Amino acid sequence: MLNVGLLGAGRIGRVHAVAVSGHVGSRLAAIGDVHAPAAEALAEGLGAEVNTPEGIIADKSIDAVLIATSTDTHSDLIEAATKAGKAVLCEKPVDLSLERALECRENAAASGQPVMVGFNRRFDPSFSAFKAKLDAGKIGKAELLTITSFDPAPPPTDYIKGSGGLFRDMTIHDFDMAKWLMGRVPETVTAMASNLVDPEIGAAGDFDTAVVTMTYADGRIAVIKNSRRAAFGYDQRIELLGSEGMLQAGNQLENSVMTSTRDGVTGAKPVLFFLERYMPAYGAEWAAFVEAVEGGGPMPVTLDDGVDALAVAEAATRSAQTGETVRL
Amino acid sequence: MLNVGLLGAGRIGRVHAVAVSGHVGSRLAAIGDVHAPAAEALAEGLGAEVNTPEGIIADKSIDAVLIATSTDTHSDLIEAATKAGKAVLCEKPVDLSLERALECRENAAASGQPVMVGFNRRFDPSFSAFKAKLDAGKIGKAELLTITSFDPAPPPTDYIKGSGGLFRDMTIHDFDMAKWLMGRVPETVTAMASNLVDPEIGAAGDFDTAVVTMTYADGRIAVIKNSRRAAFGYDQRIELLGSEGMLQAGNQLENSVMTSTRDGVTGAKPVLFFLERYMPAYGAEWAAFVEAVEGGGPMPVTLDDGVDALAVAEAATRSAQTGETVRL
Amino acid sequence: MLNVGLLGAGRIGRVHAVAVSGHVGSRLAAIGDVHAPAAEALAEGLGAEVNTPEGIIADKSIDAVLIATSTDTHSDLIEAATKAGKAVLCEKPVDLSLERALECRENAAASGQPVMVGFNRRFDPSFSAFKAKLDAGKIGKAELLTITSFDPAPPPTDYIKGSGGLFRDMTIHDFDMAKWLMGRVPETVTAMASNLVDPEIGAAGDFDTAVVTMTYADGRIAVIKNSRRAAFGYDQRIELLGSEGMLQAGNQLENSVMTSTRDGVTGAKPVLFFLERYMPAYGAEWAAFVEAVEGGGPMPVTLDDGVDALAVAEAATRSAQTGETVRL
Amino acid sequence: MLNVGLLGAGRIGRVHAVAVSGHVGSRLAAIGDVHAPAAEALAEGLGAEVNTPEGIIADKSIDAVLIATSTDTHSDLIEAATKAGKAVLCEKPVDLSLERALECRENAAASGQPVMVGFNRRFDPSFSAFKAKLDAGKIGKAELLTITSFDPAPPPTDYIKGSGGLFRDMTIHDFDMAKWLMGRVPETVTAMASNLVDPEIGAAGDFDTAVVTMTYADGRIAVIKNSRRAAFGYDQRIELLGSEGMLQAGNQLENSVMTSTRDGVTGAKPVLFFLERYMPAYGAEWAAFVEAVEGGGPMPVTLDDGVDALAVAEAATRSAQTGETVRL
Repeated sequence: MLNVGLLGAGRIGRVHAVAVSGHVGSRLAAIGDVHAPAAEALAEGLGAEVNTPEGIIADKSIDAVLIATSTDTHSDLIEAATKAGKAVLCEKPVDLSLERALECRENAAASGQPVMVGFNRRFDPSFSAFKAKLDAGKIGKAELLTITSFDPAPPPTDYIKGSGGLFRDMTIHDFDMAKWLMGRVPETVTAMASNLVDPEIGAAGDFDTAVVTMTYADGRIAVIKNSRRAAFGYDQRIELLGSEGMLQAGNQLENSVMTSTRDGVTGAKPVLFFLERYMPAYGAEWAAFVEAVEGGGPMPVTLDDGVDALAVAEAATRSAQTGETVRL
Repeated sequence: MLNVGLLGAGRIGRVHAVAVSGHVGSRLAAIGDVHAPAAEALAEGLGAEVNTPEGIIADKSIDAVLIATSTDTHSDLIEAATKAGKAVLCEKPVDLSLERALECRENAAASGQPVMVGFNRRFDPSFSAFKAKLDAGKIGKAELLTITSFDPAPPPTDYIKGSGGLFRDMTIHDFDMAKWLMGRVPETVTAMASNLVDPEIGAAGDFDTAVVTMTYADGRIAVIKNSRRAAFGYDQRIELLGSEGMLQAGNQLENSVMTSTRDGVTGAKPVLFFLERYMPAYGAEWAAFVEAVEGGGPMPVTLDDGVDALAVAEAATRSAQTGETVRL
Repeated sequence: MLNVGLLGAGRIGRVHAVAVSGHVGSRLAAIGDVHAPAAEALAEGLGAEVNTPEGIIADKSIDAVLIATSTDTHSDLIEAATKAGKAVLCEKPVDLSLERALECRENAAASGQPVMVGFNRRFDPSFSAFKAKLDAGKIGKAELLTITSFDPAPPPTDYIKGSGGLFRDMTIHDFDMAKWLMGRVPETVTAMASNLVDPEIGAAGDFDTAVVTMTYADGRIAVIKNSRRAAFGYDQRIELLGSEGMLQAGNQLENSVMTSTRDGVTGAKPVLFFLERYMPAYGAEWAAFVEAVEGGGPMPVTLDDGVDALAVAEAATRSAQTGETVRL
Repeated sequence: MLNVGLLGAGRIGRVHAVAVSGHVGSRLAAIGDVHAPAAEALAEGLGAEVNTPEGIIADKSIDAVLIATSTDTHSDLIEAATKAGKAVLCEKPVDLSLERALECRENAAASGQPVMVGFNRRFDPSFSAFKAKLDAGKIGKAELLTITSFDPAPPPTDYIKGSGGLFRDMTIHDFDMAKWLMGRVPETVTAMASNLVDPEIGAAGDFDTAVVTMTYADGRIAVIKNSRRAAFGYDQRIELLGSEGMLQAGNQLENSVMTSTRDGVTGAKPVLFFLERYMPAYGAEWAAFVEAVEGGGPMPVTLDDGVDALAVAEAATRSAQTGETVRL
């Protein structure tokens, strides 16, 4: 039984708390948040104790720490927890600064403790079935990847300002998916980005619509399409053309009802947002973490993955700002 | 080159005329209609000559006759044309009277001439692919068949009055599909029928909504669902559960556009009616007829098939009227 | 907070236990099973106490009882629990005997306690969206209903022997769906049933493949198609033709991946069986029960519904055995 | 009645010949080909006379000329035919040289004769329905366009050598679609291109896999994805994200059959290639030409459109070769 301390009791912390509680091999022992009442409210319903983040890290009975705090604390908490001998699952991104993320990776490695980065999409049932078919050779050699990732609506401008920008905040998931599916980081990154959705996003120096094209040393190509607005819901699709066929993974729809009238045949929209779409993924992610910690195997998503995605995000940001292709 | 005479220059006659003209192995030599101007209008654009139906049947240069006249003339024309040594393709049904159809079959057989009945749906690209997969064993043994057949809107009441009723006019196609797919005629026929769409149809003594259940000697079951009204278009589907899987054939849609908005994801309706849906089927039907005539092989749809479908239609009519299951 | 006692710690009891625990307004206080170790195993992980079924019914601190025991105990437990002043949610069917179910309904009514019958499919997200669209008039007046309900594989013959037969065990869900969607019980029931899947089922005097046609006083028609075997998974679909259009609810698929190769375009199968398909429905069912108990409103599924479905199942059984249409 | 001369009796010439013959308002009067036997073979079955291309252009009885010859003759024939007072429909591209195309446009304009360029995809039923929905405001303002265009298999290397390269030969259709849907030519063109499919294509100095990103003056973005190989067939799709929703147009499938087995649910592939997919489009294209010529209205696709697509193709070629974004 893995004794787990959860750091961060916000929206995403709650999701993780349910996953930890629901897993037969882990126990949610303690919850810590800089805003104590949030930790208390969450702990009460789940039979966990409340502690400070520092107290949880210092607690010898805690085996693993799940970091779901604000991004600017990730690196520090990874370092502190691994130094204290905990296994760590940390939400993405590792840091907004690539330099700091590299330093964190070095320090965590020195501790010898396992660290997993929370790229939850790898655990989405459709995306993992997609990957399994690719690995099984169903479409031969992967050649041309397309990732579509549209949010239903832009976040508040205040969120945008602290987000590190579109590529570090939103596209970073897609950069990780691309690495996972193409098996390596790209050689070149070219980003075209605009401000079409919300002028306040532009005023904050960020983009809301983008196309990133990546080329690989062996000539393969990947395209990522992002928008902060899709009126019909959360749109998360992957398509991969291979030498022997094509794989596509689509959205999860609200329901399966089709209505046929003289106006056409209408079905349901995709589910609204990431908590609904990726709820099963958070559970599977946690199960994979527990299995790796207990079995001593390699982490399914590593700090290297976190650093690589961040490096591509930096390159994309620079490309969008300069209009030049960036070579990694 | 097959020299063809077309009898009947109405709506369905025009469809056949285009199929005959477009086939490289047949020539539309002559067109006859009791209403001569209809024959003339059609012949002009296609380079065919105009003659009376009798004249066409008497014409030694005509190899094959395509009968697309009104139903009450089918049996007489089949007999006359086969007696005159022509190969015949006749529109369904053979006759509204089963007794007369049986007599016609006998007389045609005596002539030794090949006769094909125009159950065009067997030649629909989706239905023929369906049949090919069934025959290839893709779903094991066929067990439970469902045929959905909804017209977009009811025909004029005058048409209804001379149609022989829902089962002889509309369901007859489905009875043939069932025989084709199940490989034999049913043992019992049970029809539930109502008048829900148009009170005038009820006043004319006919039904507009029906479910026919058929059982086979080996325990298999088939269901046919009919309605004279589907607001969204012409709905023609088949589904067959087998011991190893299921086959489904769907509609042909107006186009492939999907529109995603906050109201849902909307696609196109099925094409409106049988001429649009089955146009490719009429061409394939004619090609199969020419091939069988030229090659001397068996007709792909025979007078036996026409008689069998009519016999089931009579049974269904009796069942709907009495509320009793009818044993064939 | 509703204090809940669960009777029955088998497969379906476990599903309900998770739903009760996961609901913010209910607490799983006690679990009872004639096989005590089953209750203990389930209670341990959920913080519930173990008691006998009788003890739970006698416990004044228990507000509501959830009956998930074997079918032959349902009526007795409903009567005992309501007499003891509990609200009751009982798994379907109420009883295998219509006479006993009627008696149970009378006794429960005398107690004044609310009783809900567990027709969980009404709470499936797709089926409830289907019903909402129907009620909103999206397809005008309902005319022709089709329910497809295929199990992936037949149950063990021992289960079949105690099941009351195909119509009371499996179709009873579909009879309830039909009542829910058509708004009333049918006037006639005609069942065609065969033994095609497993000879042992036939040897046990039961059917494994059936088509039930039901007609309503106002001429509308419903068809239910059942099979104990669908090689591709659990197939649960509804289709309803109305005067202004058609509604269809489909299956929940394992994932959204499509693989395009020279062999075609292949997607995932439906999820395997009812626990996967209807897991969200069990949660929504429980939430509806709690809301009705706490709010004092009518039960969303009543003992009348349970009795009606059973009456139709009896009629279908008689029809299949005699080959006659049965009038209710 | 429009008297039409067809120049070019190759594969695409035959397609056009059938469209001209099948149109009630046009007559295929003459066919010319530098290889006379090809013209003779085609003319025989369609009742047209055979002439030289020059003879057809000089023939006063010919109202319109359809140019379906090899690309290197397009400009010369457009100039000759318009000078001779004919209306012209010319297959794409206008020329492989942008300079020559501009000159041709000038000369044709001086003649005052109407010239239409054969971008047939605008007339595909799905693409034209897509455009109509866009123009009707169904998705608000267009923001992010994706065109997927994969051939089933690469053409012979000899064809590649004379094709002008991937962008002028294949992508040129997509450049026209982008102009048609986005309403203008892009401001920047960035092409990433590789040789992944066939080494001979690379040896011939061409690409077989490419992603072209285009930005517009108002910040909108378009992406075109090309491959010379899709094992599953001809893949032609469009997707457009707008401020209020998304439009998608898909492929035309071989048939509508779905096979459900324990291996999944398999449907048909897209039809194999452009003649099957775009056959209805060729007919609609010709009808639009006849209507514009007879009605004196503007050509639905102009030489300006042909020149614009060629200019973007040149830019894409330069971008792919240099690795730089090209500004138009």
